[in-house]
Amino acid sequence: MYKGSAYRLLESYDVKVGDRIVVKTRDNEYRGILMPRYELADDLHLVIKLRSGYNIGVSIDEIVSITLEAREEEEAAIVGRGEEEERERKRERRDHRVASLEHEYAYEHNTRLAMISTGGTIASRIDYRTGGVKAALTAEELYSIVPELSSIAAIDAEVLMQEYSENLTPMHWSIMAERVGEKMEQGYDGVVIAHGTDTMHYTSSALSFALQNLPVPVVLVGAQRSSDRPSSDAATNLIGASLFAANADTSGVFVAMHNGRSDDKIAVHMGTRVRKNHTSSRDAFKSIDAEPIALVDVDSRRIEMLASNIRNRDKGRRPVVKARFDERVALIKFYPGFDPSIIEHLISKGYRGLVIEGTGLGHVSKRCFNAIRDATASMLVCMTSQCIWGRLRMTVYDTGRDLLSMGVVPLDMLPETALTKVMWVLANSSSMDEARSMLLSNIAMEFK
Amino acid sequence: MYKGSAYRLLESYDVKVGDRIVVKTRDNEYRGILMPRYELADDLHLVIKLRSGYNIGVSIDEIVSITLEAREEEEAAIVGRGEEEERERKRERRDHRVASLEHEYAYEHNTRLAMISTGGTIASRIDYRTGGVKAALTAEELYSIVPELSSIAAIDAEVLMQEYSENLTPMHWSIMAERVGEKMEQGYDGVVIAHGTDTMHYTSSALSFALQNLPVPVVLVGAQRSSDRPSSDAATNLIGASLFAANADTSGVFVAMHNGRSDDKIAVHMGTRVRKNHTSSRDAFKSIDAEPIALVDVDSRRIEMLASNIRNRDKGRRPVVKARFDERVALIKFYPGFDPSIIEHLISKGYRGLVIEGTGLGHVSKRCFNAIRDATASMLVCMTSQCIWGRLRMTVYDTGRDLLSMGVVPLDMLPETALTKVMWVLANSSSMDEARSMLLSNIAMEFK
Repeated sequence: MYKGSAYRLLESYDVKVGDRIVVKTRDNEYRGILMPRYELADDLHLVIKLRSGYNIGVSIDEIVSITLEAREEEEAAIVGRGEEEERERKRERRDHRVASLEHEYAYEHNTRLAMISTGGTIASRIDYRTGGVKAALTAEELYSIVPELSSIAAIDAEVLMQEYSENLTPMHWSIMAERVGEKMEQGYDGVVIAHGTDTMHYTSSALSFALQNLPVPVVLVGAQRSSDRPSSDAATNLIGASLFAANADTSGVFVAMHNGRSDDKIAVHMGTRVRKNHTSSRDAFKSIDAEPIALVDVDSRRIEMLASNIRNRDKGRRPVVKARFDERVALIKFYPGFDPSIIEHLISKGYRGLVIEGTGLGHVSKRCFNAIRDATASMLVCMTSQCIWGRLRMTVYDTGRDLLSMGVVPLDMLPETALTKVMWVLANSSSMDEARSMLLSNIAMEFK
Repeated sequence: MYKGSAYRLLESYDVKVGDRIVVKTRDNEYRGILMPRYELADDLHLVIKLRSGYNIGVSIDEIVSITLEAREEEEAAIVGRGEEEERERKRERRDHRVASLEHEYAYEHNTRLAMISTGGTIASRIDYRTGGVKAALTAEELYSIVPELSSIAAIDAEVLMQEYSENLTPMHWSIMAERVGEKMEQGYDGVVIAHGTDTMHYTSSALSFALQNLPVPVVLVGAQRSSDRPSSDAATNLIGASLFAANADTSGVFVAMHNGRSDDKIAVHMGTRVRKNHTSSRDAFKSIDAEPIALVDVDSRRIEMLASNIRNRDKGRRPVVKARFDERVALIKFYPGFDPSIIEHLISKGYRGLVIEGTGLGHVSKRCFNAIRDATASMLVCMTSQCIWGRLRMTVYDTGRDLLSMGVVPLDMLPETALTKVMWVLANSSSMDEARSMLLSNIAMEFK
């Protein structure tokens, strides 16, 4: 499966995939098994499975010599044993056991990243023959696609779930939050979550509320084009997210994706302030009414911090995980002709929260006033703006003042963030008064 | 109510509001009654009510002399008669009678604009003492606020309705469409509609479908800050909209609002491709996935056309007015945790159309599939994307393909435009097949 320059190099040394080899570079010597690469990966790296279980990508430019130690056939038993170990590790993860994995990270890195895949384009590989999608984010496959990762940190990758992100629900946010909490307890220097892009901003804001007092960064990352396409942004995004998670002196929940049209600049966004603003472009994710908090240059590996108000990294800090969400919350976008009976339907279904995407500064038609008045008796009714940009200001016009006097809570934040916040607040408060007070507190820099 | 330079000039000639005067400028002579101005209007113009009934603003820099012809007391009867005529005209408008107003436009202009106010910030003046809002768009008041308008065209202004735009419904769109149709029959060279900004983009897309084969431009215009505030954009927007409506060699329905941070550049947007993207900034309205179709420089009065694919102006063309909308259409924004029972509620209420704001390329959770399958039996179910920018592409992933196979109609346009289109199509078709075919036809350049 090697091609081009890499193939010619391997041929000249007469080694094949599966062979045990020793690769010498100017600075190092790597001993391990030559791993296969995906069809559309580049032709500039070899991937070697080291004795530690980790794969490493070696740039062919740096290779001084390759020595064959044993042929594939002789190694079959060893590889087989390796697979059995991998299956065992997966079983452990499924049981949600927290095991000390310290001994796994012997190889050269002091920095350890946990990479959790949840599904989506970045973690999948489309099989063009069957049309099926295969989750591809075992550590081995990851290194095979993005060998540069091995130079950033020791990465422990696991498949937590396999869903297109449009299928994720608040229950999945809870599972992710719990798992990230475990990774924090295990002392990782950062967590990277590979995620479908469709709802990645909902998840990032949900995790921002669920994961507090974080010692290190949690970085969500996706891809707009799948890993096996030549134009894929998967590798660059993963490298940018990993560089930031491993090295940035910061903590919290972030989203890392392409910045502008540039091929090697990754923008890191605050988890509560980001939105998917384009269906297909690589720079679809934008910070709203704010700058990205950092830019990562994947080529030079430089991290440029643009925000100074973010809590620094401190591995001594103990994370607080509040992973529950109340699903009885609806997001409703108002429009001319909107039928207030939809609100009445939610009241009758026992909903506890309603986030309205109003117009302009935070308005809806007076036709909705009765339904909203009814709703405030049994639920938190909150206002945001469908304009997306700009501040919510409900005191300027009669309409806004009328709504405030009915008890509507103005949430000057993205509607998507308001939704996850109301879901989280309702599951983590013991009275409507407490809930209302939490709603109006700035918990994860969500207010504009 | 004159102040500063204008006040001093009037004082030096000893003339007062209400006096009949003759004003000589370098090029012209104006005979009429000195009209009052609003408190916060500029101090650089006098406003004179001409015998034709129209007001004109005269720049004080150009005034050579002012002669008093008669004092206010002597003129009281004449002014009173004028007011009675104005009341009569309003009664006529209420009766929706179509009268030939040819004789009204004697004064110097060959170009006639109809200005229709519907409410909102641009057409209102906030009384800070009572907090109440007063519609202020009679022709007289308009010229008093924006005297420059009189140099653009003869403008016949009327108050059609007085609503904050969040209170407008499809019924109001129908009334506006009918009224614009009448103005077209009366041979106006353009129509300017003053409108609240909150839902102006919904109205502009609705009118784009309802008003076809237009001979001249219909330009919606609003203000983000009310006319009596020093920072108001009302005057510049009105001037820009009027310049475009009067002079651009084009036809169709447009929105004219500030472009960028510039004080004197107005962007003109296609009515189906524009969105209010900011709660408060003057350049809140943006063309989505497109350039504005024109820029108007209010200072130099130059119109720069950026689009070449728009039908030209042709007063011989007969407009086709299809003003009905079916309100039994809902717009639903999908989000993680979305409860499909909302769709079932709409089915049970007899809804005929549903526009979903899906995620990414046009997706929703598979949890919604059963409800959507049920809905397609009795209504048109259409997909758009909440990303706002980018093309809808439902053939890329399983989720989209599954939805298409259920009969979901992909509408690659703004969700707000999709909503008004479905409402319009359902009211103007005789079968679901015809409706579906109309939905997929490009009627008003609404497709991306």
